Amino acid sequence: MTGSNHARAPRLFVTADLGPGAEAAFDEGQAHYLRHVLRLEGGAPLLLFNGRDGEWRATLAHQGKRGAAAHVAAQTRAQIASPDVWLLFAPIKRTPADFIAQKATELGVSALMPVITRRTIVSRVNDVRMKANAIEAAEQCERLDVPACHAAQDLMDVLGGFPADRMLVFADEAGVDDGAAKPLAAALAPHHGQKRWALLIGPEGGFEPAERDAIRALKQAVPVTLGPRILRADTAALAGLALLQANCGDWV
Amino acid sequence: MTGSNHARAPRLFVTADLGPGAEAAFDEGQAHYLRHVLRLEGGAPLLLFNGRDGEWRATLAHQGKRGAAAHVAAQTRAQIASPDVWLLFAPIKRTPADFIAQKATELGVSALMPVITRRTIVSRVNDVRMKANAIEAAEQCERLDVPACHAAQDLMDVLGGFPADRMLVFADEAGVDDGAAKPLAAALAPHHGQKRWALLIGPEGGFEPAERDAIRALKQAVPVTLGPRILRADTAALAGLALLQANCGDWV
Repeated sequence: MTGSNHARAPRLFVTADLGPGAEAAFDEGQAHYLRHVLRLEGGAPLLLFNGRDGEWRATLAHQGKRGAAAHVAAQTRAQIASPDVWLLFAPIKRTPADFIAQKATELGVSALMPVITRRTIVSRVNDVRMKANAIEAAEQCERLDVPACHAAQDLMDVLGGFPADRMLVFADEAGVDDGAAKPLAAALAPHHGQKRWALLIGPEGGFEPAERDAIRALKQAVPVTLGPRILRADTAALAGLALLQANCGDWV
Repeated sequence: MTGSNHARAPRLFVTADLGPGAEAAFDEGQAHYLRHVLRLEGGAPLLLFNGRDGEWRATLAHQGKRGAAAHVAAQTRAQIASPDVWLLFAPIKRTPADFIAQKATELGVSALMPVITRRTIVSRVNDVRMKANAIEAAEQCERLDVPACHAAQDLMDVLGGFPADRMLVFADEAGVDDGAAKPLAAALAPHHGQKRWALLIGPEGGFEPAERDAIRALKQAVPVTLGPRILRADTAALAGLALLQANCGDWV
């Protein structure tokens, strides 16, 4: 898998506007990476994206001892929107948010939202680091945008303000017993036309009953199962995102 | 996700036969784990499985200074077979086989088969370690068996002896351009009745043309795509397994 990466121009996310003749400044970390890690000469070909203007061919221009910018030439791809899928996940100790941020970005989420639940052991998430991981993954997987990275929020607060027009898929272990939760693919079937999605993955140990009641009370909630084995939270997140994209996203 | 793990009896894979009144010896590593990591007293409740006899309740018996065994009491679950899905993966440097072994076990593969391709950089896989990871994941995810763990084989050898009655799903980047590869879920639709599957994930850099031709020459081959982004090999393996289970495996 993962296509041929041989001799492809480095692909970087920038914040500057991109257009013919534009100059896009790199931040200090990028300048260091281009100069000292990749050891690129001035004039080296690059690909740039900013989440708004598509992807552009550009050439590197070193500036002084530490700076660097790019001269933007021609557009290589027009901007397209990623599917609108949020990942709400309870951060866990053994699986750093780094990993989830990388994989979920590859799998095309539009937003990464850590949620603190009652059984969540980790109480803070390094959002700067989560963003850096999402950017790196976006650069490598050829996305044209970077998912929004939110600070951790309390699950109950998220549920309280949950948008009426967004489906909330959640892995509902307890729903297996009372028959409410269906296999994900089957559960999605009546909703294929929906465009706004969220996948909620609980912590190791699952949701507390009051949390589960609050989730299920939302009319947007879709309780699902992910097979007969007990999945770790990160496996469940990845599997759930793959199934969402394959059924209602951009893998169709 | 991942159910409630609170105060559940430790669950261990053993090689001994399991039946009422049987005594199952633990290996040295397990005995050490039970005694010094979990600090269990003799008589502590355990759950055992061996891939043949289902799951059994048992109690711990320390033996001498280092040994341990279990007295087997009653069956808690009858044996069921895992879906028959092989994962053929090109080992890669950045993603240790550990990770793939763990996640693929959770996702229910029946066999882990490292394959060496022409662009594979890693030429050996630690199969003892792969097996240990598969066992640990099987214990935690409540499987009743452990996937078979094969030594690394050359891709061309695997293809040469590939079983006629097993479908071979492979992520075919090049197939996107000539229209041969379809989205995985759609590609599986005509084959839902099939019971034997394999998922083949190539190395970073993809298959060489001769390899791709050899794969496609098999009538069992099903070329598929996994969306518009470039997935890392491990992400592709996990996503592909999730979709296989959801469409033709035990998540239906």
